[in-house]
Amino acid sequence: MYSIVVEHIYLLVIVTLISVLQNAFFALKVEKEGNCQNIPTSAFERVCCANRNCMDAYPTFLAVMWCAGLCLNQAPAAFAGIIYLVVRQKYFVGYMGQTSQSTPGYMFGKRVLFFLLMMCIVGIFNYLLVHYYGSDYKEYVEIITSAASALLLIP
Amino acid sequence: MYSIVVEHIYLLVIVTLISVLQNAFFALKVEKEGNCQNIPTSAFERVCCANRNCMDAYPTFLAVMWCAGLCLNQAPAAFAGIIYLVVRQKYFVGYMGQTSQSTPGYMFGKRVLFFLLMMCIVGIFNYLLVHYYGSDYKEYVEIITSAASALLLIP
Amino acid sequence: MYSIVVEHIYLLVIVTLISVLQNAFFALKVEKEGNCQNIPTSAFERVCCANRNCMDAYPTFLAVMWCAGLCLNQAPAAFAGIIYLVVRQKYFVGYMGQTSQSTPGYMFGKRVLFFLLMMCIVGIFNYLLVHYYGSDYKEYVEIITSAASALLLIP
Repeated sequence: MYSIVVEHIYLLVIVTLISVLQNAFFALKVEKEGNCQNIPTSAFERVCCANRNCMDAYPTFLAVMWCAGLCLNQAPAAFAGIIYLVVRQKYFVGYMGQTSQSTPGYMFGKRVLFFLLMMCIVGIFNYLLVHYYGSDYKEYVEIITSAASALLLIP
Repeated sequence: MYSIVVEHIYLLVIVTLISVLQNAFFALKVEKEGNCQNIPTSAFERVCCANRNCMDAYPTFLAVMWCAGLCLNQAPAAFAGIIYLVVRQKYFVGYMGQTSQSTPGYMFGKRVLFFLLMMCIVGIFNYLLVHYYGSDYKEYVEIITSAASALLLIP
Repeated sequence: MYSIVVEHIYLLVIVTLISVLQNAFFALKVEKEGNCQNIPTSAFERVCCANRNCMDAYPTFLAVMWCAGLCLNQAPAAFAGIIYLVVRQKYFVGYMGQTSQSTPGYMFGKRVLFFLLMMCIVGIFNYLLVHYYGSDYKEYVEIITSAASALLLIP
């Protein structure tokens, strides 16, 4: 069932991945220029800014997680998604409790998103290999991915 | 075809649901602290704020509607989506026409999103029941859901 | 495989299309009132505003591209997606390099999104034709769509 689905959506997945890379480029530009609202004075501005940063990254996260889950294997993708949610929770709480001198940056959960991105690329690459050469490394790749997802727990 | 699809994505759906709950937590924090831009002075600031509030909730709505439609039944999910769009239209128009003393809150359409969330949970729960016990309540659940979606029309 | 998938999601696709039209209505309202932050003074405000405008349109783009790819054909949808990403890159870079007198508008890539929207509508219409009348124009439609997607290259 996987290969049938991937056959019909792999071009869409590739475009989604490129758009995610572009999003990361935009976010890096914002991060380089400075944090959103450099000196948030009130508690409301802090929570509003934290919420906006989280919401900005939410479609990117959804797109990468679903592509990774559909193209390769859902278990490591869902595990990485859980890790991302924990990181996001910590980011939000940490943003609110901060004094105004040192707010966290614009981006967060970079490692998890990078892992999901790698999963998508490996899944697409594996599909193309199977399609054109007939050799199927998917089971090995899935085992390696499941093992690698445990590495995300290392702080 | 439903059960095949749900079998391959149910972990992703669960993570998506948890992220939706986290979004709701963030939004409640923002709502508790105050509205976005407490006293919007000009017409432009009002329409910009209304647009941003709508856009912030858009990925959450898309994710919940698609998960509900894929996991349980598309007809009630699409009907609830239509209701949500009507509520959003009213919110946007009402936001622009408001005087600055009393703007509507940050969140809207809470009941519809809650209904879609319930549909997802019921669909996942039903899939797990079928998978582990073999009893299939899906038809009963779909009938009840279709009937319950009519309740959303009550103001 | 296409017809099976479309049969189970076409109501969701229709609701998504209506929500995209509503998004466009909101964005037009914002555009009519003025640009976001009319006179961005610093470089940080410019890049932050450009990033926010891009992020606001991102879920809309993802939804339309995936619906178009699933309902009709993935190749023209992915091609239009690539064009959209190029337009977005130009928009972002152009926004940062602008002097404060003339910033680009709130919306961009309107033609590409309109093309993807048309693809969705044609796909749904074609599915309903096949479902109720049994005549299948899908192959002709796909050829016409692939040819029409080349028109997007015209500046």
